[in-house]
Amino acid sequence: MKMKPINVGLLGIGTVGGGTWEVLARNGDEIRRRAGRAIRIVRVADKDLRKARKLVKGKAAVSADAFHVVRAPDVEIVVELIGGTTVARELVMEAIRQGKHVVTANKALLARHGNAIFAAARKKGVMVAFEAAVAGGVPIIKALREGLTANRIEWIAGIINGTSNFILSEMRDKGISFAEALADAQKRGYAEADPTFDIAGVDAAHKLTILSALAFGTPMQFGKCSTEGIQALTSADIAYAEELGYRIKLLGITKNTGKGIELRVHPTLVPVRRLIANVEGVMNAILVKGDAVGATLYYGAGAGSLPTASAVVADLVDVTRLITADPEHRVPHLAFQPDSLSDAPILPMDEVVTCCYLRMRVLDKPGVLSRITRILAESKISIEAMVQKEAGAGEPSVDIVMVTHRALERNVDRAIARIEKLPTVVEPVTRIRLESLL
Amino acid sequence: MKMKPINVGLLGIGTVGGGTWEVLARNGDEIRRRAGRAIRIVRVADKDLRKARKLVKGKAAVSADAFHVVRAPDVEIVVELIGGTTVARELVMEAIRQGKHVVTANKALLARHGNAIFAAARKKGVMVAFEAAVAGGVPIIKALREGLTANRIEWIAGIINGTSNFILSEMRDKGISFAEALADAQKRGYAEADPTFDIAGVDAAHKLTILSALAFGTPMQFGKCSTEGIQALTSADIAYAEELGYRIKLLGITKNTGKGIELRVHPTLVPVRRLIANVEGVMNAILVKGDAVGATLYYGAGAGSLPTASAVVADLVDVTRLITADPEHRVPHLAFQPDSLSDAPILPMDEVVTCCYLRMRVLDKPGVLSRITRILAESKISIEAMVQKEAGAGEPSVDIVMVTHRALERNVDRAIARIEKLPTVVEPVTRIRLESLL
Repeated sequence: MKMKPINVGLLGIGTVGGGTWEVLARNGDEIRRRAGRAIRIVRVADKDLRKARKLVKGKAAVSADAFHVVRAPDVEIVVELIGGTTVARELVMEAIRQGKHVVTANKALLARHGNAIFAAARKKGVMVAFEAAVAGGVPIIKALREGLTANRIEWIAGIINGTSNFILSEMRDKGISFAEALADAQKRGYAEADPTFDIAGVDAAHKLTILSALAFGTPMQFGKCSTEGIQALTSADIAYAEELGYRIKLLGITKNTGKGIELRVHPTLVPVRRLIANVEGVMNAILVKGDAVGATLYYGAGAGSLPTASAVVADLVDVTRLITADPEHRVPHLAFQPDSLSDAPILPMDEVVTCCYLRMRVLDKPGVLSRITRILAESKISIEAMVQKEAGAGEPSVDIVMVTHRALERNVDRAIARIEKLPTVVEPVTRIRLESLL
Repeated sequence: MKMKPINVGLLGIGTVGGGTWEVLARNGDEIRRRAGRAIRIVRVADKDLRKARKLVKGKAAVSADAFHVVRAPDVEIVVELIGGTTVARELVMEAIRQGKHVVTANKALLARHGNAIFAAARKKGVMVAFEAAVAGGVPIIKALREGLTANRIEWIAGIINGTSNFILSEMRDKGISFAEALADAQKRGYAEADPTFDIAGVDAAHKLTILSALAFGTPMQFGKCSTEGIQALTSADIAYAEELGYRIKLLGITKNTGKGIELRVHPTLVPVRRLIANVEGVMNAILVKGDAVGATLYYGAGAGSLPTASAVVADLVDVTRLITADPEHRVPHLAFQPDSLSDAPILPMDEVVTCCYLRMRVLDKPGVLSRITRILAESKISIEAMVQKEAGAGEPSVDIVMVTHRALERNVDRAIARIEKLPTVVEPVTRIRLESLL
């Protein structure tokens, strides 16, 4: 039986939308041979009509009104690639109301409004697919929701923001400062003019929120994600870490501790022998620890036109396959059946236990170290490794760098506050968390 | 609507079968919350009845007759974990005749008889799932068949045999010989008493055959896979490779060249900076290059009881989800619709183009090198790097090591034959292929 093509409405034909158009055009035959059915974009919405028309060359109807495309009777699947959480949200909700399936790459939208969107989709019996929302073309959503279904997921640790990983790679490789590396990333188009979302960890927190919900079967809880960016990292910290056998990566980490779920994005020291420590430039990698499978890792381009389009089109094929099937045959949006979600709480950051890297700038005087180590001992923090630098000629202060054993965040906070009050400690203490990822 | 549990018949409760039993018992609730339906093993077949009964503890009917389990009316899905290509084949074919779905970890069976098995399954409208057949718990089958559907796959290069990767890691780490590393692997249970399948590359060739068929939409063509094992590798080669910036891995490589499909397993020099060069011990990793997504990598435990069971149970969940759906909604066995398979030929090995590492043991006399380089030039092989060792005191012969640019295999074969005829070349030439994996 020859099935008729499936008709798609594309909202936004910018970087990812243009890539989606290109992939469907270029590999259309290959995709039809896989899906058993052609997938074609019949309508495109974009504010820039001229650009859209130039790309589409008359092969799809072009409109400046995205709602018009969403409501067009010939559109069966809506691909939302506009971004943001205002208009995009209305468009996705309207598509669901119209009984249309949705494919989106919008992590901010799902992390913030996913619960409402999935509930509405469920009521209407439509699918909302979002492989492109995390790690671009890497099929991590599919791995988590389907490939690892047999496992109780223990934790996930991922490099899920390519911009910040590029900046950290550059800082280490070239020994340059954060500001220089950021400027370089902007020059190459890897960072936006306003890079806050990327470097402050917000983009990674959006993606981590999605991964955490899928891993542990909880609703999205973006508001409870603890987020720290890479802006304060110095070349000195990167060099000290290297000296101690670690590399600094901006990781999104989520872990089921039994008492609650950790949900945190922060710079992290990782042993240099781990594969994930060697993920360089704009690449993404996600390490998933399951109780049966052990640690698995998924690596690839986390952004960019064609890699992200790869995920959008994979979702289109998935939706196409199941479009006439009973909703019960579909993989649940949040990996677990909607009536089986977990209410495990998110653990507050001060209850998290990690190892730490601490760098303290102190006056080069006798007794300084013993006062610091006493504070740490009183806070139940034990030291695994220490490097004390010789003072440069004429320099009154030196760096002391320590790696601690596992300690409660609250205790570390208190110890740092006490250490910073010592008259011999001349700068705020730098604390970077450390994960062995075993 | 509450759905009744799905009933599974388990054939073989050894390493992987026992793991499957354990995972379903341990994570049964988690799996039900995902699948929307409980999955339970109701019958187990094993020749060792005592062992089976001890594991199963009365929670499933135990039989020594696997055909009995296959034919039992209460069994809806048959899990084949017996291995081999004789009885296992009859059991799988009988299950299909009975209209039952099959989950198997049997790569040898699929690589050799997959075409007949999938054809029979298609006629009967049943699923044959085989995630566990390649790379244990790493969901690489799912990634290839579903996650990367948007892509024209260009090539795949994988470490898909943990035993040989362990041996190579040990040889490099400890500077020991192949025989010593093999003995170590056997002592730790990573290698069988007869390790031929693993070290000769046959197991990797089975898995590569499956990956290649899925990537390029061709039938299984195991008989045409070119296979070379790791038995002849020396510590000297590993050390020279390291010196030149490469690591030696047993890779399964399949590539669509346009003229045909390369299908080859052999030791391979890989630049040490590539992630895959840093995959150590029994771990597996598969690098997949798609035209849209670029290079993606999938890493994890490629064998073992629980990791392999993780894949078996993921397949059980997939089959459970789609068991009452129309067959047309299912992902096709070989990734492409059965009427859309490609007839691209497998390229004979002598038409393959690669870079090469060549080690030649020569008498330490003037003029030797110039004769060798002339032969290479006449064979259209150009040299990218060379290391000539100083002869040890009193040693009459020395090693010359070269890395060539890309050259046609046939030309390299001829050049090697000519070089080996030179009276100043005292040992057979060692040739190891080199891939930059970009």
